[in-house]
Amino acid sequence: MEKLTHARDKGDTLAKKKSPIYLDYNATTPIDPKVLDEMLPFLKENFGNPSSSHIYGQTAKKAIEKAREQVANFLRTENKEIIFTSGGSESNNQAIIGTSFANIKKGRHIITSQIEHPSVIETVQYLKEKHGFEITYLPVDKQGIVEPKDVERAITNKTVLITIMHANNEVGTIEPIKKIGLIAKENEVVFHTDAAQSCGKIEVDVNNLNVDLLTVAGHKIYAPKGIGALYIRSGTDVNKFIHGPGQEMGRRAGTENVPYIVGLGRACEIASTLVQDYSQSVKILRDKLHKKIIEGLGKETAKLNGHPTKRLPNTINLS
Amino acid sequence: MEKLTHARDKGDTLAKKKSPIYLDYNATTPIDPKVLDEMLPFLKENFGNPSSSHIYGQTAKKAIEKAREQVANFLRTENKEIIFTSGGSESNNQAIIGTSFANIKKGRHIITSQIEHPSVIETVQYLKEKHGFEITYLPVDKQGIVEPKDVERAITNKTVLITIMHANNEVGTIEPIKKIGLIAKENEVVFHTDAAQSCGKIEVDVNNLNVDLLTVAGHKIYAPKGIGALYIRSGTDVNKFIHGPGQEMGRRAGTENVPYIVGLGRACEIASTLVQDYSQSVKILRDKLHKKIIEGLGKETAKLNGHPTKRLPNTINLS
Repeated sequence: MEKLTHARDKGDTLAKKKSPIYLDYNATTPIDPKVLDEMLPFLKENFGNPSSSHIYGQTAKKAIEKAREQVANFLRTENKEIIFTSGGSESNNQAIIGTSFANIKKGRHIITSQIEHPSVIETVQYLKEKHGFEITYLPVDKQGIVEPKDVERAITNKTVLITIMHANNEVGTIEPIKKIGLIAKENEVVFHTDAAQSCGKIEVDVNNLNVDLLTVAGHKIYAPKGIGALYIRSGTDVNKFIHGPGQEMGRRAGTENVPYIVGLGRACEIASTLVQDYSQSVKILRDKLHKKIIEGLGKETAKLNGHPTKRLPNTINLS
Repeated sequence: MEKLTHARDKGDTLAKKKSPIYLDYNATTPIDPKVLDEMLPFLKENFGNPSSSHIYGQTAKKAIEKAREQVANFLRTENKEIIFTSGGSESNNQAIIGTSFANIKKGRHIITSQIEHPSVIETVQYLKEKHGFEITYLPVDKQGIVEPKDVERAITNKTVLITIMHANNEVGTIEPIKKIGLIAKENEVVFHTDAAQSCGKIEVDVNNLNVDLLTVAGHKIYAPKGIGALYIRSGTDVNKFIHGPGQEMGRRAGTENVPYIVGLGRACEIASTLVQDYSQSVKILRDKLHKKIIEGLGKETAKLNGHPTKRLPNTINLS
């Protein structure tokens, strides 16, 4: 309930200022004040570079490792399988480009769907146009669902990656990731899911979902814009995307954005405890809103897009 | 003097707390309190996604465009030639990988030096190992200087990029970028310089330097870690590096890190007005420190690394 209260409080505060009420939480969320509190010392006195061996550096380094554990707990996995990135788009780029080039000896075929986020679609398109990859774009049914059997049929001995989103950002449909993951595993193909939209709204357990790579975007779960994470299952062959010094266990170069990393850690910790409650409460509110609209306009006038039940609890898309 | 006072104040505050005095400003700088003040509203109430058309989004968008102007003024160029990235490493990666693949029809040869930052060295190494590029690593003289004539001799009709740092991060030597830039221009080769270490310490004027691409890193000029910029001269053919939605004039995907962008803008604005004063004041302090060390240890015991005069005013490296 805590997260929901925050969102509602925000609405109240804005209403008092006579500003429009913000309902666009799939586009971005505000930073949770608890998250910001955790970040502030790292924007002020704790400014060390984690790569420096002196006390300023080491304080920063410890904070990063704590955050890594918070993200790992949130995704029900181990610290060493989490790296921090500059956001969901970078995570998707690394998952796709990094896996494709690491496994290029096997072939140049990628399977994805027609409804992915542009940071997936544009990236596979880049690999197609500039590096000769072949891309299979799977269709979705009327409710926005990718059929696992279609994934199975599309796999060839040249397939290096399957990338299918966990939940859709427009209509909120939840994809059958667990089933697709099993198929990927049986066929020994690396499987990535973009969970930018589902994290914090429904449970995201990387082992339960059978994924090798999973994208987290900070600004969808009350952490800032400009921070994300990538889950990389141990043993998965993924190249670096940003090349340079050996930060992030040699998997992502660049001086660490300590304040935002700390913020993402805290946001994941909060989300871990709230996701069940949040999910149920916001679903009740959503369905109440839907009912009122139907009552007012009629079922034929206001048509629901996406799946009636396999859908993010906070999402309603009508036409 | 203002920036210097801030640095000194920081030292005093830390000294009062009996913490060690921080002198490692080439590794990272703290965030200037004036920069943080500018950032805070965007970490709190102004949280909109710049891609959203509502008022929350548009406030964020305006703030980004103001920051772009501040960075452009700092580098003495136009807004449309500046994009924001997640830091110096990403800027270097985009400059190198983006230019190489955009110009691949010409050839696969890159010229760099032996003393570049790992985000340059590792990136060209990646292109060599994974994509068949040939790399020329130019040597430097005893004082760390790249000889422009060596650059000229290394150019072939397959050369797609020259990348030489503006100033070295360890010994502070300033490279003859202007001369190398002229050679690049005459030979129609794209020229990139990593100015992460020089920005804010000496004047950086992209036209005076004859560069096509220039890297800025926020955390070296009193902005946070996790933000940077890339100057791209109009007409320079550089691919996107992070693929996805059309942010940053279609040149860098990813939801914009509005607070940090605002911070980088303000830091550049401050640096623009202070760089001359700072440069002279810190040089006096540095040379005083050097003199005291020599007096104490003798000239033979404490040997200066790098160039005696063509060197960053804040840098002293002895062995």
